[in-house]
Order: sequence, then structure tokens, then C-alpha cells
Amino acid sequence: MPTIPARRFAMQRLHAGQSIKVIDSSGGQVIDTWAFTIPSTPAFPRYMSMTHTRSTLQKLLPSVNESFLDNRRDPILTIVEDTSPGAHDVLYAACSPERYLQLGGHKDHDNCADNLRSAVQQCTEPSFSHVVGFLESGWMPDPLNLFMKVNINGTKLQCLDPDSKAGDYIVLKAEQECIIMQ
Amino acid sequence: MPTIPARRFAMQRLHAGQSIKVIDSSGGQVIDTWAFTIPSTPAFPRYMSMTHTRSTLQKLLPSVNESFLDNRRDPILTIVEDTSPGAHDVLYAACSPERYLQLGGHKDHDNCADNLRSAVQQCTEPSFSHVVGFLESGWMPDPLNLFMKVNINGTKLQCLDPDSKAGDYIVLKAEQECIIMQ
Repeated sequence: MPTIPARRFAMQRLHAGQSIKVIDSSGGQVIDTWAFTIPSTPAFPRYMSMTHTRSTLQKLLPSVNESFLDNRRDPILTIVEDTSPGAHDVLYAACSPERYLQLGGHKDHDNCADNLRSAVQQCTEPSFSHVVGFLESGWMPDPLNLFMKVNINGTKLQCLDPDSKAGDYIVLKAEQECIIMQ
Repeated sequence: MPTIPARRFAMQRLHAGQSIKVIDSSGGQVIDTWAFTIPSTPAFPRYMSMTHTRSTLQKLLPSVNESFLDNRRDPILTIVEDTSPGAHDVLYAACSPERYLQLGGHKDHDNCADNLRSAVQQCTEPSFSHVVGFLESGWMPDPLNLFMKVNINGTKLQCLDPDSKAGDYIVLKAEQECIIMQ
């Protein structure tokens, strides 16, 4: 079972029907997650899309036995099991060099946007050469921020401490051949 | 003053500091809106990003005198004035051929995603050739759905009838050289 070191990334290819269990091993960890399909010919892959999921399901987030959709509104990942309290954010962008600069930090601070770029660069799928170009142009699909808890109060958003405990996990089943990047 | 026919599109280039007034002429109309910057050299433009706006402002939507941000988290459009009740959706994807098929309609039904693709194809900015390629690959930035009212109830989303009245308008000021597409 691979462990993702803090501030680093991992990727896993899944065939349709295969599942991945993502464990919050120490509790209170947020894990930015993306999914891209594997086209059969070199072409730009579909990607898991928070906005298409929201507007088709008419929910912020799928529940257990419901699916995240891709940017063509087809199921890509189904939540099969979730032992956490069920708070996962779908409203926040991945942290990025620009964000750390705005917060008074350094642009070279490890961040999820750069992690995704690194993961895609290391991906050997021929179709992914397109994705590198998109990401280098500044494109960044909305992540699924596993175990991140965001409260909506009117129009205000508030990041709260994650309420997942050590060992909490979520199981995601691939509905299409895809690569999960985290 | 140009009128956007129902189900059609328009675009307007703005210099930094210029404003555009978008009027709901008949009341209860939703106007999907996108903004792209004009790079000084041929390059992929930045785009108005709902998710970067949300996560930087920590709000679903800017208020009057606050700005939508681009995908590098810089201001791109500021809300200068808004005579509507202030409901504008930032959670729903643009309607698309796939959506009409899922709803039992026809894939050739006029839709906002195709409208954006048409607008970009007609745009003469050299940098926009990249955008056409991205859009044809299935990319679609989250729109700002002006005057669209969405209620959040727990995790459920509910589209309500727009509460804008005939003549209600919003004024958006460009913070960067950009093109608005609607």
C-alpha cells in the first residue's frame, strides 16, 4: 500500500470497475484528488469535473453510491464507501504558488497545483502530453479535496479543521479507465 | 447598445478600467458570462475562474466593489453596481449538448457551451487559437451565470426562478485588458 508523503503526490491507474481506498492515515489530512480518463487514441482526456457533477446531480457533492462526473457529464468515480464524517470540499481551488505569495509565503512552497503538474509530467500515457500543455498554460481542474471541511454560511465560506480521524478512508470505484492523481 | 438574442451570444473587448453594463432587458433572464484576458504575446489567456475567486475571497461570489479573479488569482472583473437582488450563480456548468441529451432533449438544442465555442471561433485575437483547441477538447471554464438564482440547502442545490426584473442590470469593470463573452 503506497503512502503519499506530506506535500508530495502519487498516481494510480484504474481499470473500469477497480476501486481505490484512500486512507487518512494520521487523521485531519486533506488530499487533493484529480481523475483523468485514458482515451483509446491520443486525445485530450476527459477529467473529473466538480461543476458538471454539481449541476447534473443538483448537489454539492455525491453521496455514497453516487458518482463524480467528467466534463462530458458521464460517471468517472463512484463513492463506494466512506468511513469519515463525509466532509469533502469541492469549492476550493488547489493551493498554488500564487496563493502562497498572496498569503505572504514563498512561491516555491510545496503546493497541490505543482504536485499535479509534476504527476502529469511523469505520466507515460501518450495522450497526457496535451494535459501538460494545458497545465503549463495555467489550467487547473477543480480538485476534489478529500477530508477538507468547508462550511457555507450565506455566501461566506469557512475552512474548518478536518474532522476525519486516523484510519478514516474513502473508497472510489472507477467507472471508466482512468488515472487518479493525488 | 447591442442586444443579445435569446440563445445567442455576444462578445465585447474591454480595456483595463472600462466597464460593461449587462441589462436583463425582459427580466428573469440568465446570462452565462465568461472573461478571458488578452495576452500581449500569443499565449494562452488567463480566464475568469469561479473556483479561484471563491477560494481567495472565501465567499461564493464577490459583492459590489469586489472582484472576480482569474486562474492566477488576479482581479479581472469588479462588480461596480448591481440593481438586481444580487443572485448570480457560480456553481452550475454551462448547459451543453450532453446536458440536453440527458434531459431527453436533442443534442443540437442551442446551448451556452456551444455559444462560447462559437464566440471564441469568431474572435480574431491571435492568442485565442489556443482557446479553440482547449474548448474543442472538452474544456469549459465555469461560467458566471448572471441573474441565475440557486439555493443551497445542506448539500442540495435548487435552481429557482430568477428574481431579476426587466431593466435590472449589473456593471462589471475590467481590471485587465479582456474579452467578455456571453
